[in-house]
Amino acid sequence: MDIVKGKQLYEGKAKKVFETNDPNLVIVDYKDDATAFNGEKKGTIHDKGIVNNKMSDFLMSLLEKEGIPTHFVKEISDRETIVKKVTIIPLEVIVRNITAGSLSKRVGKPEGIKLSVPVIEYSYKDDELGDPMVNDYHIISFGWATKEELAVIADYALKVNAFLINYLKDVGVDLVDFKLEFGKTADGTIILADEISPDTCRFWDSKTGEKLDKDRFRRNMGGEEEAYQEMFKRLGL
Amino acid sequence: MDIVKGKQLYEGKAKKVFETNDPNLVIVDYKDDATAFNGEKKGTIHDKGIVNNKMSDFLMSLLEKEGIPTHFVKEISDRETIVKKVTIIPLEVIVRNITAGSLSKRVGKPEGIKLSVPVIEYSYKDDELGDPMVNDYHIISFGWATKEELAVIADYALKVNAFLINYLKDVGVDLVDFKLEFGKTADGTIILADEISPDTCRFWDSKTGEKLDKDRFRRNMGGEEEAYQEMFKRLGL
Repeated sequence: MDIVKGKQLYEGKAKKVFETNDPNLVIVDYKDDATAFNGEKKGTIHDKGIVNNKMSDFLMSLLEKEGIPTHFVKEISDRETIVKKVTIIPLEVIVRNITAGSLSKRVGKPEGIKLSVPVIEYSYKDDELGDPMVNDYHIISFGWATKEELAVIADYALKVNAFLINYLKDVGVDLVDFKLEFGKTADGTIILADEISPDTCRFWDSKTGEKLDKDRFRRNMGGEEEAYQEMFKRLGL
Repeated sequence: MDIVKGKQLYEGKAKKVFETNDPNLVIVDYKDDATAFNGEKKGTIHDKGIVNNKMSDFLMSLLEKEGIPTHFVKEISDRETIVKKVTIIPLEVIVRNITAGSLSKRVGKPEGIKLSVPVIEYSYKDDELGDPMVNDYHIISFGWATKEELAVIADYALKVNAFLINYLKDVGVDLVDFKLEFGKTADGTIILADEISPDTCRFWDSKTGEKLDKDRFRRNMGGEEEAYQEMFKRLGL
């Protein structure tokens, strides 16, 4: 069956989602819009949508081969990808290898400290509440995921981390931290959803420490378009 | 050997600690001073020091019988107790049975919702940082406790909760939440330290819901002295 793009279901900060003629599939359309600080800062990064679409598809394809189920089905244009329709689990799953950003602020430590173990954090996805950090007990008690689902999510998150660390090391990039989102398909299977891109990861050049991610935008450093293109090129895309 | 009170080691918001002639023991002296919101609000609650000293000693004695090691050694006056000297683990260990306070704010839920499982939260004890919430990964990665120590702490915290819920139910009090602190003795044993009192617990009358704890002070409700005395009386002290 040919997949036909239907009406728009949702427009987020960086993506639009469209229904299709298959109830189990949707089409994601990546925008160049960039936001930060819960939408307080707004802008665009030229061709970000293309980089994020293609990079996310590329990395999810690799992760599928590593045994991590993802929502990726098929890239249909520079900015559009067919993905499995899921009910998003309302958690941002953050994995950290090096201190940066909100963790540095939270615990009063400078950025750039190598963590002795990978750190997982969960934020409850709620813009009005500012995506507050929560823990396993909150998640289970409020029913955002079951204990069993959370064990699967944490296992996948650590596996994604281990794979990406090694893959990126080979192209001269340190994986500082990243944010994943997971969803449930109609049959209850938990799969990796959302995206993996410079919007959702911190990438530092292994030699120079140069930031190759959205922090350039967040922190008004300039060069964000070039940083996204550099990551694109390093992955051979 | 008679224990002799030596020089003051430390003055906190609600207690002073004195050295003794035994290097493994210190004397805690409870004050009537009350603070809230990281010291922003200050006041006194008449005879709070007596209530907290005696209630804490009483509950820790009961917990010892339940197999939870505590710092309690001997009450020597209305406000003074000899306790084991420990190095405090820099974590506030919060156990919650019903939504209230910072949890309600964090997740946007009203107070008074029964949690389906007891919730443990950890805060890193740092006044300047505002005692930020942290999780197991942070604690292990930054070395505030080892994985094994944290397992012991969580086990003790849940056992303290189970015991106190039942004990307080019999005197008509719902245990909403409470904060514990743990310390390590010279030989590395983890024991319950600090205090268990209306300063560190939320107690609600089972029938009326009336607050019998420091929230009366925090929220300018009045009747804090009477609330502390009521809890004192309910425990038969």
